[in-house]
Amino acid sequence: MAEHPAQLTWDLIVAARARIAGKVSLTPVLTSTSLDAHSGAQLYFKCENFQKCGAFKARGATNAVFALSAEDARRGVATHSSGNHAAALARAARLRGIRAYIVMPDNTAQAKRAAVARYGGEVSWCEPTLAAREHAAAQVIAATGAVLVHPYDDLAVMAGQATASVELLEAVPDLDVILCPVGGGGLLGGTAVAAKTLKPTIRVIGVEPAGADDAARSLRAGRILPSLNPNTIADGLRGALGVRPFAAIRARVDDIVTVPEEAIVAAMRRLWEVMKIIIEPSAAVPYAAVAAGVLNLTGQRVGIVLSGGNLDLDRLPWMSGAAPP
Amino acid sequence: MAEHPAQLTWDLIVAARARIAGKVSLTPVLTSTSLDAHSGAQLYFKCENFQKCGAFKARGATNAVFALSAEDARRGVATHSSGNHAAALARAARLRGIRAYIVMPDNTAQAKRAAVARYGGEVSWCEPTLAAREHAAAQVIAATGAVLVHPYDDLAVMAGQATASVELLEAVPDLDVILCPVGGGGLLGGTAVAAKTLKPTIRVIGVEPAGADDAARSLRAGRILPSLNPNTIADGLRGALGVRPFAAIRARVDDIVTVPEEAIVAAMRRLWEVMKIIIEPSAAVPYAAVAAGVLNLTGQRVGIVLSGGNLDLDRLPWMSGAAPP
Repeated sequence: MAEHPAQLTWDLIVAARARIAGKVSLTPVLTSTSLDAHSGAQLYFKCENFQKCGAFKARGATNAVFALSAEDARRGVATHSSGNHAAALARAARLRGIRAYIVMPDNTAQAKRAAVARYGGEVSWCEPTLAAREHAAAQVIAATGAVLVHPYDDLAVMAGQATASVELLEAVPDLDVILCPVGGGGLLGGTAVAAKTLKPTIRVIGVEPAGADDAARSLRAGRILPSLNPNTIADGLRGALGVRPFAAIRARVDDIVTVPEEAIVAAMRRLWEVMKIIIEPSAAVPYAAVAAGVLNLTGQRVGIVLSGGNLDLDRLPWMSGAAPP
Repeated sequence: MAEHPAQLTWDLIVAARARIAGKVSLTPVLTSTSLDAHSGAQLYFKCENFQKCGAFKARGATNAVFALSAEDARRGVATHSSGNHAAALARAARLRGIRAYIVMPDNTAQAKRAAVARYGGEVSWCEPTLAAREHAAAQVIAATGAVLVHPYDDLAVMAGQATASVELLEAVPDLDVILCPVGGGGLLGGTAVAAKTLKPTIRVIGVEPAGADDAARSLRAGRILPSLNPNTIADGLRGALGVRPFAAIRARVDDIVTVPEEAIVAAMRRLWEVMKIIIEPSAAVPYAAVAAGVLNLTGQRVGIVLSGGNLDLDRLPWMSGAAPP
């Protein structure tokens, strides 16, 4: 009966890595002497903004789609997502030659809408609330018979996301700590299992916008405390913490800290200016904790997952009149 | 007497490479399946936007500064530059522990001003014309005794710039063609000597804004025809073609083509969106020729030098109200 284990294991991550090899990119790890000097730490940026679809989400979605049995795959896949998982699932489905039904909140950034369309995902729109997303996805699944691939509350998705940190630790084995953004928790939970397996003494710290701090509050409380009205420019991190990610986070993550909106925007702009790479607001959140002094990591070797690079170039946060979508 | 040869030679490039090793970055070569599909060619982007100071200019300036005799070096160095060469010379001078006197046009982008200040360059301002720049630089040199390091009309500078294409051809030996932007011609002239030495059958093509097309007109005429009033968003390419670069270009470059302003902006935005890297308008000029169909390179392996990544993030060309500085 229990074909899948109840929680994320190293074996699932190893299987994910083999399954997605050649279907997603081995992304580079970049460094900056200027940012190192400013922080007093050695920073290693895992550039998932260069990943297929422009975000780490390609890893989890590809693993989930290719882990399906032939019979399940024929039904197609469905999901609800604020963007990067949607494009990643559409791409993975196209790679496997099956259909992808995508429910997107109607405030999704234009760049993320276009990406789903490019990969042939079949989109339906909903209100930008978790309840509306889940309801719309359930309707789509009832109508089509498609298999739900949840954006984070799914062990195959988490196992895929974990492969980013496996690569990071292979590139830089002696890291002292890894920092990840936290939305639904799939990346952080996966990272924690991968990193602590490969190096038990490493610390894994989640960083969350103060305006969407459900994971930080949940970790302290020992149970999931939803954010009723998440409000942050980091649109990839507005999702509610998932049950399976939370189990991995409770068991393995050392801490979750929060950063204010101004720190996120400043960190994003600084990474653009100094590193000459484009990252989305969500991806700037971990570095914001370093730059704003929320975390003191002086003298340490710090891995930072830059989660993605998809955003509307017409709506940059430092443009006059720009507001979070 | 003639310690330096009268024109750029392969030996000067080999010496430059050894001299600047460890002082500048070996930049990555990136590819994009999406841009390849769109162009019908295989594109290899040499990412000098990731270079020290954010531009290939670090190569030439570093070579020129470290090629000075100890006696000359003690006098300090001086230049006039619209930006990237200025920062690069200031940085190279600091590395060698000597002074750098920089004449900058007063319409220089803020990001480029800040870079010169960061490296301790001593700045004086002038009107944004070549005559004013040369006059101000002559005054500074008369007052200080510093050695002029011209931004492009200098064999040591050209030899340094040429090392970018040496690395590109080592990474991708079977290129059919290399595309470079053209301003003063130092990069294009250096590239032509390096590339044609390493692979005599390769084609080297310069790409220039239509609004600053002195190199294209000069190549056709067989003599230097200055642009009296260059007008382009590609601020790094407004300089007048130099005598030494023109000699190398006439001898070795296959063609120089021009692109309109709209094509430059569209190419810049497309490279930002697809590759998730920040390049300045000047760096988008060669790809603009591919994307706009000015060059048809179907089926070919194309090296493209992305010359730099320095620009004001508050003045992006697609922002409402933004105008070229």
